Amino acid sequence: MISLSRQEISEAVRQALAEDVGQGDATTLATVPARAYAHARMVAREPLVLAGLAFARTAFQTLSRRIRIEPEAADGDRLDRGQTVLRLEGPARALLTAERVALNFVQRLSGVATLTSRYVAAIAGTKARVLDTRKTTPGWRRFEKYAVVCGGGLNHRRGLDDLVLIKDNHLAALAGQRPSPIAAAVVRARRAYPRLKVEVEADTLRQVEDAVAAGADIILLDNMPSRVLRRAVALVAGRALTEASGGITLASVRTVARTGVDFISVGALTHSAPAVDLALDFTRRPRHSSARSHEP
Amino acid sequence: MISLSRQEISEAVRQALAEDVGQGDATTLATVPARAYAHARMVAREPLVLAGLAFARTAFQTLSRRIRIEPEAADGDRLDRGQTVLRLEGPARALLTAERVALNFVQRLSGVATLTSRYVAAIAGTKARVLDTRKTTPGWRRFEKYAVVCGGGLNHRRGLDDLVLIKDNHLAALAGQRPSPIAAAVVRARRAYPRLKVEVEADTLRQVEDAVAAGADIILLDNMPSRVLRRAVALVAGRALTEASGGITLASVRTVARTGVDFISVGALTHSAPAVDLALDFTRRPRHSSARSHEP
Amino acid sequence: MISLSRQEISEAVRQALAEDVGQGDATTLATVPARAYAHARMVAREPLVLAGLAFARTAFQTLSRRIRIEPEAADGDRLDRGQTVLRLEGPARALLTAERVALNFVQRLSGVATLTSRYVAAIAGTKARVLDTRKTTPGWRRFEKYAVVCGGGLNHRRGLDDLVLIKDNHLAALAGQRPSPIAAAVVRARRAYPRLKVEVEADTLRQVEDAVAAGADIILLDNMPSRVLRRAVALVAGRALTEASGGITLASVRTVARTGVDFISVGALTHSAPAVDLALDFTRRPRHSSARSHEP
Amino acid sequence: MISLSRQEISEAVRQALAEDVGQGDATTLATVPARAYAHARMVAREPLVLAGLAFARTAFQTLSRRIRIEPEAADGDRLDRGQTVLRLEGPARALLTAERVALNFVQRLSGVATLTSRYVAAIAGTKARVLDTRKTTPGWRRFEKYAVVCGGGLNHRRGLDDLVLIKDNHLAALAGQRPSPIAAAVVRARRAYPRLKVEVEADTLRQVEDAVAAGADIILLDNMPSRVLRRAVALVAGRALTEASGGITLASVRTVARTGVDFISVGALTHSAPAVDLALDFTRRPRHSSARSHEP
Amino acid sequence: MISLSRQEISEAVRQALAEDVGQGDATTLATVPARAYAHARMVAREPLVLAGLAFARTAFQTLSRRIRIEPEAADGDRLDRGQTVLRLEGPARALLTAERVALNFVQRLSGVATLTSRYVAAIAGTKARVLDTRKTTPGWRRFEKYAVVCGGGLNHRRGLDDLVLIKDNHLAALAGQRPSPIAAAVVRARRAYPRLKVEVEADTLRQVEDAVAAGADIILLDNMPSRVLRRAVALVAGRALTEASGGITLASVRTVARTGVDFISVGALTHSAPAVDLALDFTRRPRHSSARSHEP
Amino acid sequence: MISLSRQEISEAVRQALAEDVGQGDATTLATVPARAYAHARMVAREPLVLAGLAFARTAFQTLSRRIRIEPEAADGDRLDRGQTVLRLEGPARALLTAERVALNFVQRLSGVATLTSRYVAAIAGTKARVLDTRKTTPGWRRFEKYAVVCGGGLNHRRGLDDLVLIKDNHLAALAGQRPSPIAAAVVRARRAYPRLKVEVEADTLRQVEDAVAAGADIILLDNMPSRVLRRAVALVAGRALTEASGGITLASVRTVARTGVDFISVGALTHSAPAVDLALDFTRRPRHSSARSHEP
Repeated sequence: MISLSRQEISEAVRQALAEDVGQGDATTLATVPARAYAHARMVAREPLVLAGLAFARTAFQTLSRRIRIEPEAADGDRLDRGQTVLRLEGPARALLTAERVALNFVQRLSGVATLTSRYVAAIAGTKARVLDTRKTTPGWRRFEKYAVVCGGGLNHRRGLDDLVLIKDNHLAALAGQRPSPIAAAVVRARRAYPRLKVEVEADTLRQVEDAVAAGADIILLDNMPSRVLRRAVALVAGRALTEASGGITLASVRTVARTGVDFISVGALTHSAPAVDLALDFTRRPRHSSARSHEP
Repeated sequence: MISLSRQEISEAVRQALAEDVGQGDATTLATVPARAYAHARMVAREPLVLAGLAFARTAFQTLSRRIRIEPEAADGDRLDRGQTVLRLEGPARALLTAERVALNFVQRLSGVATLTSRYVAAIAGTKARVLDTRKTTPGWRRFEKYAVVCGGGLNHRRGLDDLVLIKDNHLAALAGQRPSPIAAAVVRARRAYPRLKVEVEADTLRQVEDAVAAGADIILLDNMPSRVLRRAVALVAGRALTEASGGITLASVRTVARTGVDFISVGALTHSAPAVDLALDFTRRPRHSSARSHEP
Repeated sequence: MISLSRQEISEAVRQALAEDVGQGDATTLATVPARAYAHARMVAREPLVLAGLAFARTAFQTLSRRIRIEPEAADGDRLDRGQTVLRLEGPARALLTAERVALNFVQRLSGVATLTSRYVAAIAGTKARVLDTRKTTPGWRRFEKYAVVCGGGLNHRRGLDDLVLIKDNHLAALAGQRPSPIAAAVVRARRAYPRLKVEVEADTLRQVEDAVAAGADIILLDNMPSRVLRRAVALVAGRALTEASGGITLASVRTVARTGVDFISVGALTHSAPAVDLALDFTRRPRHSSARSHEP
Repeated sequence: MISLSRQEISEAVRQALAEDVGQGDATTLATVPARAYAHARMVAREPLVLAGLAFARTAFQTLSRRIRIEPEAADGDRLDRGQTVLRLEGPARALLTAERVALNFVQRLSGVATLTSRYVAAIAGTKARVLDTRKTTPGWRRFEKYAVVCGGGLNHRRGLDDLVLIKDNHLAALAGQRPSPIAAAVVRARRAYPRLKVEVEADTLRQVEDAVAAGADIILLDNMPSRVLRRAVALVAGRALTEASGGITLASVRTVARTGVDFISVGALTHSAPAVDLALDFTRRPRHSSARSHEP
Repeated sequence: MISLSRQEISEAVRQALAEDVGQGDATTLATVPARAYAHARMVAREPLVLAGLAFARTAFQTLSRRIRIEPEAADGDRLDRGQTVLRLEGPARALLTAERVALNFVQRLSGVATLTSRYVAAIAGTKARVLDTRKTTPGWRRFEKYAVVCGGGLNHRRGLDDLVLIKDNHLAALAGQRPSPIAAAVVRARRAYPRLKVEVEADTLRQVEDAVAAGADIILLDNMPSRVLRRAVALVAGRALTEASGGITLASVRTVARTGVDFISVGALTHSAPAVDLALDFTRRPRHSSARSHEP
Repeated sequence: MISLSRQEISEAVRQALAEDVGQGDATTLATVPARAYAHARMVAREPLVLAGLAFARTAFQTLSRRIRIEPEAADGDRLDRGQTVLRLEGPARALLTAERVALNFVQRLSGVATLTSRYVAAIAGTKARVLDTRKTTPGWRRFEKYAVVCGGGLNHRRGLDDLVLIKDNHLAALAGQRPSPIAAAVVRARRAYPRLKVEVEADTLRQVEDAVAAGADIILLDNMPSRVLRRAVALVAGRALTEASGGITLASVRTVARTGVDFISVGALTHSAPAVDLALDFTRRPRHSSARSHEP
């Protein structure tokens, strides 16, 4: 559950427009009259789960306050090929100039939402839930995590400061500590950050035992085969939450979910989701005004 | 050919670190002593073409000036699975805290470079060259275009202001103009922007003829089957450059290249390249100092 | 043809107000009642071509949303001495505090537009067109290029990235190349930047020949006397566009235009245009309210 | 007396480079080898007073840390035509790419300094001093005021908050106050801003009397003929400082100075100073290295 | 007298919300329905002088444009315990999320205003006035100086550039100058900054004499006992303004004021004012709508 | 445990210098020679716990790279009256100009650290620990939380996104839920934010029971008298952590700690800590250079 603010959307859109438009949309300025008026609709060219509609709206509205926008879908909606996302009507120049930026946001965020929704569908009926990771596009973490939520996924930690996650490399300096390096690390984390949950990465069942004994809130079961996962879940026995991670694909995710883990985290949701195909279709014949009246 | 400045890299890295680190790397602060020292190396976990090394260096150096970095590869290099990208040595806390941000940049940009290099390899021996598009991640256009160059591709226009590209939707207001709407649009573009090249999108051979007659510098042949492409190239007969686009995949790109077009533009290079797999491996036994001396 | 966005105008005005107002307009705060209401009009004190009106409007509106503004002229209009630019009505404090910033923008941009219009008028009837250069006030390039358009001029390249312009100093490393260093440079530019036009600077007729032979799109004829310019234009014979530059003044520009060149670029348009004289005249007797009612 | 900080210079230069370079210096990247090395010197092409050298240095150093810079002049120096400002040596690409930005700063700021120095020279031997005004390029006030100091001028107020300057329009609400509207305004200003000096604009000798009687620190004598100025100075009789302003030119400034005023403020110093002519001359034969070793 | 602009308030509030809200208000998002609607009022929990109301309004309005706000007090008002500052009505989520930021601004600024008003009240009937200092929270100077005005105090200089204030440490290089180091410093300051007033810090009566003789506008009487202050005021005899400073408390301020000084500056107003106690009280039963209709 | 980055310190210092210095330090520029050289030391004028030393260092170093700094204390150190914090040596102008900004940071942050240390000392020997709150100066939260750590305190949540804290106002919409509104809220929070701890505010023992039964991680015992606190702690019986809050003063904190609560949160640490008294003492006689050599 993450909500994006108007400010951060506006700011991202403004930067994207500056990046794309630069000195001005030469083609449009040279060939389209200032008073030309157009209708267009954004359409899905393949089945998808929508995310990022507000970015598209903001892109059009930033270029002209006179554009009228009627959304026909909302973030999180599942759309078929050919279905309309939103209808637009207004100055033709602004519609043409904002087109690419609007599409770039929606095609990418819907790509993340759509891939997420496939993982979520694949484990339907199990108790497991799909989590994202910190493997996001730098500068886009909040946007991508928002898209994961649109696709039915759940957000893992937002960064390094809202969850303690103890991995192998953190234990190097604690070798030899009693009863275990993991226990020593958990104690330190609890003392320094009483407000945060503590998750411990375990590569072996022995480490799972140590983590549970240390009172970890969540156990990250990294790169374990399903059979080991199942034993780990049994070992934990509800004393902590469990999360499976490491190379889990659409093909394998259901098997993993059936081991009984609480969460499955998938880096590909954000780092390798292909864009979905969307387009802006312009309709020649305006509904509310004759073409003649818009000529300069 | 695009070169990234130190400033823009620093700025992007600073924002990425702010985004990821937030209040502080709780786990590392709680479990790793301030004086602990570590060695690590960034390694390719699959074959890839490298891009974005400077981002990784900057991420580590931003967190600590005491990190020593020895690169063993350079942007544009083709790496095998297991090959080392760079070696690192310095304060363990800084290495651990910067790890994810450094990887996030390199895995994504190398993903773009690697996919580009596959398209480039697929058309080896033809005269065609691979171009990117404006279908980039908002805010990342320069970075992604740089990665395309690392992969052997060529950059198409940077935005709406450095090339006139006349499409169908620009012609709406010019219907009925003589000798053709395309010709009217080219004249207007030449007059308004004498410093820019003019490219015209053609969906039919008739439009190709109009565009050549109008003196377009480049003809964009959109979504044409190979057989039509070949006829279009013959029709142009060297009077303009030709660019094929529209749903071209790794499977089809060679056939397209053989039609004789000058350029092939591929949106997927930037909007759908999966991240490549890279990791940071920590080595326990430091080379130059004993573990004892680093305890607080 | 360049269009300024609301955002960039607002941002520039905000910075200018911060720069001028600082802690607050001490004089106005101390002497003018908060509820005082005033009328004013911005007037031309010499003949001028107007540019930058939107900056003035934004300056007043940024300080108070209650200021009513009625423009009586538009950018690009030619105004006589004494003519009104816009009428203002609203809180006296805001009018007084924004006055200088509003005038500073308009007097400078109208200065550029006015000087440009003189060059344009001087070559009326020839086919030549007046171009600006990159010799602009750092941070103001877009604003000054916009003012050039208001004065009837045409914009040359916006920066180093939207046109290749090969000068003497670029050729140093290509000495001895066949058929000529210029040809070698053009080939490299075409290969690296197929989307950009290539312009070549020529100081001699020999270089003009080389540039045309190399297929340059535009030839920059630098610092040539009119008689040589005429021979250069004849030599080019329409195979490329021609641009004259170098120390061209209002006195000499018509002679240059008559040589048949396509463009004449003039650095002085932006680097040495004197400000035009404009003022804000306050009228004591408000139209819609009695003075009494505004006393605190 | 104003000193510019390293930070503000860097920031202005960075923005100027971003504005000019954009995606990259296409010409230089395509034609000049990455390892080419060059020498250059910045030279005055007309007599001038130098200002802004630090901006030029920063422009070159921002693009490459390997550029060696030897200044042969300092801000405030008077240079003859042909005299060297600074010598440069380093990567040819960086020198070529930074050239225009470096020159744009120096030519404009030296323009202001040079014009100022002419006014200062014109009144040599009188006690009057030359002041600038708030009629500056928005965003450049500090830079232009610094250039005024380089030219031997003195800075008037930096903005609306460091001096009270009561003009006609501020008095509207005080009509009828005793002993005079000016006196009422001065009392209010003294009360609200005891830390600030109070200057009063006077258009008539009667207003001069009122201002002196009110205890103004400075009297601004606006648009008065010399003969009236002389009487005003006699009337003030040292009880306040006097400042003449309004349409004072190089031709008239000495006559004004001889009236005995303390200050003469000239808007043209900043709003209408033409740029001075400076250039970067590249020398082909490097002093310290053979051309061969720099080829890639 | 200082006025805050809408822009600076919005910017400060936006940063404060970003700082506090981060990824999102987890508690509210999880427990409060998106459509829930609430009423609340901000109340004083102790007697106070109000300052910063606009920050609170902006905080709520930034989070939701649908919040209706009715202020029942204005900056500068003296409020009793239990008195209402403003009434709020709108989406419950936005009210809850903005609550802390809104209170943080008002409690701190009202703290400054309240403490200032106590000093002002303590010297009622004397001619002395209370001044603030430059001992402010970095980044908050304008806000805190505004709060001082709300409390009835007067602002001293805004920074190092709008008043010359010569202290002991500035005189080190002028030792031995005639007639006194202070006189030499005043001459230099007058020459360099004719537009600024000159204040001189005096620790002894001898220095007071030097400062008056040098023509200082204001004498800062630092850390003098009341009896010495009285002699200093007599010595100055109206030839300059006098300011007492140094460890003046609520207990001692009246005695100081009675010495006849013009100003008393107090660092504690801004560096040590405790926050006042304010709270947001939510009322369960909405006035204009039934609870039922807001359930999702 | 929070660590401040070099970047955020530099940025805050840069803004503070811009705010204070403005156009330039008029007094120092007019009276102190550019080459003057000075020694100074920052000293505690009252007993204090130090925090913010890096801000002071950065302030001096930002103004001149030639200032040498030798710290004699570190953040977290307890200093007596008269003890030296750091020694400085360098250009006199830079030392004088940076003085106030350096002191403003240190006096405020050390004020927070010092007050925190008094609370920590007051509960020595108990198991309770002192926590800060979100009642911080907007824009300064990280700095103030850092100062709390320097004083021996522990940081509570950084904002609204790293801990769920369910208060009365969040429960409004859940009235009537079974087994209790608190239980319903905890379930929702667990589901939406599995990575976060859940704290529940309880005003009565009944609510304490509900919260424990709902599985809250921490119970906030708000405004309870010590006797009720003791019963609440007994009721919780180690099943959750306990935090006391609400009007706890230095006088009452030990009594509260003795009730057995785990944490005591105190808003006054950040919202009402008075600044501590520090000063910069300049020494006239430089150690390493004769005064003569610094004269211009």
